[in-house]
Amino acid sequence: MNTTGLGTTIVCQIGLIVRDIEKSAQAYSEVFGLPRPDVIITDTVDVAKTTYGGASTTARAKLAFFDMGQVSLELIEPMGEPSTWQEFLDEKGEGVHHIAFRIKGTEQVVAYLEGKGIDVVQQGYYTGGMYTYVDSTSALGVVLELLENFDTTE
Amino acid sequence: MNTTGLGTTIVCQIGLIVRDIEKSAQAYSEVFGLPRPDVIITDTVDVAKTTYGGASTTARAKLAFFDMGQVSLELIEPMGEPSTWQEFLDEKGEGVHHIAFRIKGTEQVVAYLEGKGIDVVQQGYYTGGMYTYVDSTSALGVVLELLENFDTTE
Repeated sequence: MNTTGLGTTIVCQIGLIVRDIEKSAQAYSEVFGLPRPDVIITDTVDVAKTTYGGASTTARAKLAFFDMGQVSLELIEPMGEPSTWQEFLDEKGEGVHHIAFRIKGTEQVVAYLEGKGIDVVQQGYYTGGMYTYVDSTSALGVVLELLENFDTTE
Repeated sequence: MNTTGLGTTIVCQIGLIVRDIEKSAQAYSEVFGLPRPDVIITDTVDVAKTTYGGASTTARAKLAFFDMGQVSLELIEPMGEPSTWQEFLDEKGEGVHHIAFRIKGTEQVVAYLEGKGIDVVQQGYYTGGMYTYVDSTSALGVVLELLENFDTTE
């Protein structure tokens, strides 16, 4: 177990903000000849406990995933309310929002990144784990996402 | 050999436009604990035969690569003159410019994509191969890059 840094340098996901997820999912499916994935919606704030800029937010997003080898391509359609997803769409339009890494020990990794001047911008839970977006845009040109799946084998 | 489509769905590279490659390479190196890579410069137009929007361009860029598993992260600092790199920096600022796929048969793949309304925006050569950027931003929200290494085993 790596006790400093992210503990990994393996990109596991590319997250792309889109305006219309049905249209984009169809386009990716057609261009790459991949099956069109189901569109899911992030959990409501009572379940996801979503925070943005340190405050609770009811923001949700529609998601669809394509398997592109080691990397999954995540399409994200923000559904309004303040979030890093909506902020990106409003400021930059469609495009790659984040690259994600599968980590263990969110708290330690967040502390490590804060020590580098990279702070948490949004956090939330999904079934089996939690995600953390850190605002690394000024340092790295892109948001990083930390994905931690909880160990359920104990 | 796949005769339709891209022939692959495996992302091999994430290309990120930056303003100052030395600063960004240092930041990635520090955050991920990866060795700081050498910065290289794309070939001059007489060697690279670079075209942008169908016309020859003297545009060059500084590049640096980080190994992140299946995917390499490519930092790109445009050095001026018209190019898809410079256009992205001027319009969007720093951020992910493209995702790349290793293909065979650039001509056929380009024809396939043109059939989907996705046209070539920039092409050029590097030692051992060629690259093609296609303007898939309106369809897919991001530029695709086709990387073809020439077979030298015959």
